[in-house]
Amino acid sequence: MLETTTSAIRPPDEAAMAAARELHGRLTKPAGSLGLLENLSVRLAGLAGICPPPVPEPAAVAIFAGDHGVHAQGVTPWPQEVTAQMIGNFLAGGAVVNAFARQAGASVTVIDVGVAHPLPAPTGSAAPASTGSAAPASTGSAAPASDLAAPTGSAAPVSDLAAPRLIDASVRRGTRDLSVTAALTRDEALAAVLTGVRVADELIDAGAGILLTGDMGIGNTTPAAALIAAFTGVDPLDSTGRGTGVDDATYAHKVAVVRAALARHTPDPADPLGVLAAVGGLEHAALAGLILGAAARRTPVLLDGVIAVSAALAAAAFAPDAVAAMVAGHRSAEPGATVALRHLGLDPLIDLGLRLGEGTGALLALPVVTGAVRVLHEVATFDSAGVAEK
Amino acid sequence: MLETTTSAIRPPDEAAMAAARELHGRLTKPAGSLGLLENLSVRLAGLAGICPPPVPEPAAVAIFAGDHGVHAQGVTPWPQEVTAQMIGNFLAGGAVVNAFARQAGASVTVIDVGVAHPLPAPTGSAAPASTGSAAPASTGSAAPASDLAAPTGSAAPVSDLAAPRLIDASVRRGTRDLSVTAALTRDEALAAVLTGVRVADELIDAGAGILLTGDMGIGNTTPAAALIAAFTGVDPLDSTGRGTGVDDATYAHKVAVVRAALARHTPDPADPLGVLAAVGGLEHAALAGLILGAAARRTPVLLDGVIAVSAALAAAAFAPDAVAAMVAGHRSAEPGATVALRHLGLDPLIDLGLRLGEGTGALLALPVVTGAVRVLHEVATFDSAGVAEK
Repeated sequence: MLETTTSAIRPPDEAAMAAARELHGRLTKPAGSLGLLENLSVRLAGLAGICPPPVPEPAAVAIFAGDHGVHAQGVTPWPQEVTAQMIGNFLAGGAVVNAFARQAGASVTVIDVGVAHPLPAPTGSAAPASTGSAAPASTGSAAPASDLAAPTGSAAPVSDLAAPRLIDASVRRGTRDLSVTAALTRDEALAAVLTGVRVADELIDAGAGILLTGDMGIGNTTPAAALIAAFTGVDPLDSTGRGTGVDDATYAHKVAVVRAALARHTPDPADPLGVLAAVGGLEHAALAGLILGAAARRTPVLLDGVIAVSAALAAAAFAPDAVAAMVAGHRSAEPGATVALRHLGLDPLIDLGLRLGEGTGALLALPVVTGAVRVLHEVATFDSAGVAEK
Repeated sequence: MLETTTSAIRPPDEAAMAAARELHGRLTKPAGSLGLLENLSVRLAGLAGICPPPVPEPAAVAIFAGDHGVHAQGVTPWPQEVTAQMIGNFLAGGAVVNAFARQAGASVTVIDVGVAHPLPAPTGSAAPASTGSAAPASTGSAAPASDLAAPTGSAAPVSDLAAPRLIDASVRRGTRDLSVTAALTRDEALAAVLTGVRVADELIDAGAGILLTGDMGIGNTTPAAALIAAFTGVDPLDSTGRGTGVDDATYAHKVAVVRAALARHTPDPADPLGVLAAVGGLEHAALAGLILGAAARRTPVLLDGVIAVSAALAAAAFAPDAVAAMVAGHRSAEPGATVALRHLGLDPLIDLGLRLGEGTGALLALPVVTGAVRVLHEVATFDSAGVAEK
């Protein structure tokens, strides 16, 4: 199945890109005055193979969640239970990703690809911090976690913002400790990648015009740092950051753990499945699959932070033309994100020092992507508007 | 009236800011993980004097339009008629600002404070470039230009996205040539400032929760460059850019025109009305008034590009505490914008190389502002969501 997906990923359509460039020159604005938005809209025309490309609506956020054996090495101050607890928060609509998704009109799907602890029963009790009048109608209306379909089941409408959805696609209850052994077998890594491909297909079949990457997994910046070092060749010091906030001693230990893991496994960047198995995570592997699935369907995928871009490196190693489907939502505060974006040749749309994950940075960038495409659909030409040119 | 407005502008409320910082520490996210959005939401709490501050909705874009006597010096390749023609485009819904405003759910009000050429009769013929299915329902439904109220008249509902509105508040049909004489008398400059204050009041009275600055005026980056040099003290070479795209010879001439104007008028930055009169523009003066009017009402004003930030320098000179109401939407490609933002101490939210004006950069940043505030209203606390802390 993965071969079917990767072989469906084609280079961008040069004719559609040329048509978009030509159209930009006729719209009622000075040439080039929309800066990076012009290049973005040209890229999306190339991806879609038509000018103007479809307005990328509705948007669907896919949050892949997993736990990490390397948590035992003390690379993060957060207890591992928080991964499962935050899934409860996502389903109750109480996390930042929910607030941003409601604002952007995006659906939220949480996919358990390897959470270690039992997911909490939905309680509906995750009250908003404020009881003011702006509290959303959806808060507290969590979808039950127990009655949801496997990833091959039928999708809920992506426009149903009131009900964040949970898909159980657990490969194993957390990875092994990558500092001791391979995090995953090749079969486990492949299962997670294929889950990502299936989720992409399902969301696009349900009508999504753009997919947004999300992630949750206490400790997951450690495998991300290892993946970025493995795929780009940079030193672990340059790919490793402080994640959700670690002190100097923990940071030095985290870098040492990444360095030792790379020395132990010597992952081959030409073998992306092997890299994901050796030093990756289940959510990283699934995100790589989501990106490949979107690219095969010529649907844009808006990348969030460091977890997403580490997965994007794996996707690009599976299929270099997958980069044409990628839009970098933001520049994470994690240094490895900048390394990965440079390697992929992507310019991030937003740079606000975010380091939260969940899909929050991608959601903030979504209106920029939509706006870039709407310009090609909606703006008058000099000729049609009767505006003189210089 | 201006004294009434400036004396109503107060410093931010420290207690509300402290409450916002404390609330951020309890929300289900790592401390500081929302980067600049956290500081932004704290500032808006200080402006509103309450935590959480109101979600800044609905949004209203105010596009002030004027022409410039300095156009005669050849500082731009665009004919002056384009200012009036683009107003026709705004009212027909065919400009980039209209596409972005529809997407953001913002109203558009165009205020003629000094357009030189007759405004075109509304034709409704500004067809979108594409006739695809995404064409908005509002395209072609321009509000008639001839039957609109003076700025003191009653406002249309700001939520009426289908009808961009025109207000006739012309002070004079374009400024005088600032390279020869003062662009405006002090009375003319004051009239434009007071129009801006009235528009702010009107939009806020009609329900707007945030104002966005827009501008239209062929040649208006030349007075903006002069204003920025006058208020910040930088050399005209550092405050002058290429606007909508001028060649090297025109750029050198433009810098020389700004330098000569400053040498002729020696404007005093402690006398903002005098600076606006000597080297400003009617839309720059009106935007300064809009900012002051918003600040007096403790309502945030989202700044667009170089015209907006040059006006913001004037507003800050009238009332230093007005800065608390300002949010920098984006970093314009014009070098003067960066000079002005640094002087004001503002960090822009978006940096995409835009140099279009109209309010387009502010509109792209609007979801970031709204999202920053929604976090304080909607996100669960660790305690309420049952999520463990580190």
